[in-house]
Amino acid sequence: MNYQMLRYVMGQIFKLTAALMGVPLMTALYYRDDGAVPILVVLLPLLFAGYVMTARKPVNQTIYAREGFVIVAFAWILMSVFGALPFVISGDIPNFIDALFETVSGFTTTGSTLLPDVESMPMSLIMWRSFTHWIGGMGVLVFALALLPSGSAQSMYIMRAEVPGPSVGKLVAKTQLTARILYGIYIFFTVLEAVLLRLTGMRWFDCIANAFATAGTGGFSVLNSGIGGYGNVWVEIVITVFMLIFSINFNLFYMLLIRQFSEVLRNVEIKVFFGIYLTTTLLITPNIMPLYGGSFWRALRYAGFTTASLCSSTGFGTADFTLWPAFSQTILILLMFCGACAGSTGGGLKVARVMILVKSGVSEIRRQLNPRLISTVKLEGQVVENEQIRTQGAFFILYMVILLVSTLLLSMDRYSFDVSFSAALTALNNMGPGLGAIGPYGNFADFTPFSKLVIIFDMLVGRLEIFPILIAFMPRTWKKA
Amino acid sequence: MNYQMLRYVMGQIFKLTAALMGVPLMTALYYRDDGAVPILVVLLPLLFAGYVMTARKPVNQTIYAREGFVIVAFAWILMSVFGALPFVISGDIPNFIDALFETVSGFTTTGSTLLPDVESMPMSLIMWRSFTHWIGGMGVLVFALALLPSGSAQSMYIMRAEVPGPSVGKLVAKTQLTARILYGIYIFFTVLEAVLLRLTGMRWFDCIANAFATAGTGGFSVLNSGIGGYGNVWVEIVITVFMLIFSINFNLFYMLLIRQFSEVLRNVEIKVFFGIYLTTTLLITPNIMPLYGGSFWRALRYAGFTTASLCSSTGFGTADFTLWPAFSQTILILLMFCGACAGSTGGGLKVARVMILVKSGVSEIRRQLNPRLISTVKLEGQVVENEQIRTQGAFFILYMVILLVSTLLLSMDRYSFDVSFSAALTALNNMGPGLGAIGPYGNFADFTPFSKLVIIFDMLVGRLEIFPILIAFMPRTWKKA
Repeated sequence: MNYQMLRYVMGQIFKLTAALMGVPLMTALYYRDDGAVPILVVLLPLLFAGYVMTARKPVNQTIYAREGFVIVAFAWILMSVFGALPFVISGDIPNFIDALFETVSGFTTTGSTLLPDVESMPMSLIMWRSFTHWIGGMGVLVFALALLPSGSAQSMYIMRAEVPGPSVGKLVAKTQLTARILYGIYIFFTVLEAVLLRLTGMRWFDCIANAFATAGTGGFSVLNSGIGGYGNVWVEIVITVFMLIFSINFNLFYMLLIRQFSEVLRNVEIKVFFGIYLTTTLLITPNIMPLYGGSFWRALRYAGFTTASLCSSTGFGTADFTLWPAFSQTILILLMFCGACAGSTGGGLKVARVMILVKSGVSEIRRQLNPRLISTVKLEGQVVENEQIRTQGAFFILYMVILLVSTLLLSMDRYSFDVSFSAALTALNNMGPGLGAIGPYGNFADFTPFSKLVIIFDMLVGRLEIFPILIAFMPRTWKKA
Repeated sequence: MNYQMLRYVMGQIFKLTAALMGVPLMTALYYRDDGAVPILVVLLPLLFAGYVMTARKPVNQTIYAREGFVIVAFAWILMSVFGALPFVISGDIPNFIDALFETVSGFTTTGSTLLPDVESMPMSLIMWRSFTHWIGGMGVLVFALALLPSGSAQSMYIMRAEVPGPSVGKLVAKTQLTARILYGIYIFFTVLEAVLLRLTGMRWFDCIANAFATAGTGGFSVLNSGIGGYGNVWVEIVITVFMLIFSINFNLFYMLLIRQFSEVLRNVEIKVFFGIYLTTTLLITPNIMPLYGGSFWRALRYAGFTTASLCSSTGFGTADFTLWPAFSQTILILLMFCGACAGSTGGGLKVARVMILVKSGVSEIRRQLNPRLISTVKLEGQVVENEQIRTQGAFFILYMVILLVSTLLLSMDRYSFDVSFSAALTALNNMGPGLGAIGPYGNFADFTPFSKLVIIFDMLVGRLEIFPILIAFMPRTWKKA
């Protein structure tokens, strides 16, 4: 383990986190609210620690996969711990575990909340809460890579550990330029959404906060009543469109940018993704029509928003789907498993991974008939290597083990099986809402502190796609070679 | 596709099924009940058809994996269709889909019932219902292989397709002798259980029927009130012991028989299986104590029986676990996934398969740290080949896809998510009871015919471990090479 590099990169992350806290600090100064002091109390020591830790450059800047995983795991955990402190210090979320829950839910773009009354918080802290989604969506380390001159040629290990999806391809030869392109696209769409929301008549504060939450596919809302609270169909349409945009593999936007249109048209994952979105919307609409006075259009409005919200793993709510029929709820649960496209800010297993998994399952049926057959799994016109298939299979197994063990641990709490199961599922897939008491208009406040820690673990494991968190806590990782 | 062999083996299965119907026929004659005529009406044409179909031996007796899967799938489906007819003809289960449900539930050793009043049926049909468990437990084709002089050297393909577990090892070089040894052990323990049950004071009819149901790890009961209805702790102890015995890999009994004790002592799967049994029992006992007047022993009695019932995939009930706390119910659901040992009559994923899956998941974590590492997964001291790991991974994926799609299809019915999910889970793992309305003292009668067909499909797919049923219905299977 290269401890010097670990120290150095953590220092960079501390400085960056402090800089990012400038956004809520500005908000506090603008609105002259009570958030300024709590934010500064965390920001200043963080900045100081960051400068101390980065004062001396490491002699040996070589890092390997091991360091990549550990750096990413530590960065996310420490960032969450420090990010939670302003809520504790201001007294808005006095309990530290609760504040950590809310902050991890933010950074991991889950969007599960335990606040019954968001609106009572200072504007600056509401903004910080929504902004954590934006930071976590594309990833803080990718941000660091974009900003800092990359001292290490192996920074790809860090990027690979943080960006979701079965495989991470660099857009261009340099990691730093790839990171910059990704953030450029990310910022462009965020600004575009905020402007479009403004055109619907929403006040600027909400435009920005909601754009942050959509961009990260997070789902924290500014109003207690969620996105439904605006009661404006144009708001819903804009947000639906952007939830879907941020679910798309960002590589495709880059392809559009460099005019490789045929690459985009050939992409299968995006077709499957939109196929899933349209199919589930059209299945749910007639199923929930009776609940909305038999109106097809009203049902379509709620179904279209909710499926986009869960396809993209955002978790915004305009309708309480816990009241919908079991068929619709089961579809939503399947959407939680599947999630968004690889290389997007969305969560879940990712469409590309589900495709690899299902195709490898089907190819095995063929191989049963003819064991000597060398069956190949193809994705996007390319053969998926056996190593990759094995990795994805193992990923799925670990995912299911964590899901089921978490469900068991959560079942010690006061809730029934479906609530415990959906709590683990929604956390692991970075969705937000679950079934029953934790639906889109419920909250996670009544879980025990132990359950909250389980959910925090699941959210982090889900966002970082299992390996970094597990590897960081394995004794083997810390042994000398 | 070797159609001649398909016809010939089906003929053998028809004759065998007719012969096996001799058991309920004898019961009908002994008790002089109304079952004799309905049984004969099916038995005689079946026998006739069997003789016609086997009159001419196929010239070409060569079969491959393809034929093995198709033969097994067809045998199980046709056997279920004919096995259901006596219930329809006698009028005890007038609806054919209902009768098919009950019979498939019997043959697949699931034990899910839709009869609210079993005791009202003629004794002979109650016996036939329990006897289907015994036939299905070890497998009708294995039985055929044991009885008939094997004309084909490739009969191993048939055995492999019918015997559960990740890998089927022949005990001895000859398939026929292997099948005979397995059935010998099976009969020995069935008789032993019946005799021990008799010693508790149970009437012979119940002893035999319950021994059949335990041996197949089925779970159909003779009394409306289940095994709990005897109110006899000795009955519960005998059945608990035998549920566990029939969950063990039969190869181990053979090893005992030929005095290879060290083989048995070295076996890891059985240790894990009993570890799971004891751990879950000890976790559930304190959790349910408050429901049983705070008595540790009463709680242990019900917990010990229920966990054995679900570890073994039998599904007998002495307590209504739908009233237990969510923690206990969630443990029971995890037991449903896991199931019994490979090579036993039990269902579920099988302990050996779960071990391969989890170990391959863990080995992937190691490989993430060092991609050049050739990590090996070991089971029972032997390296599990990569092919095998890939097959089991694909199996698990298909299993999860079928589970989730079935849950979706069942959610169109009147039940909530947990009931639909547990219905699919209990069917696919050949357990019997589920949560809520389909608990140990509920039944499946109120599902729609469509839902019943979905459950029938799941039970067959689960018992034959996915591939045979899927392969039999793929157009590709029937194409000329």
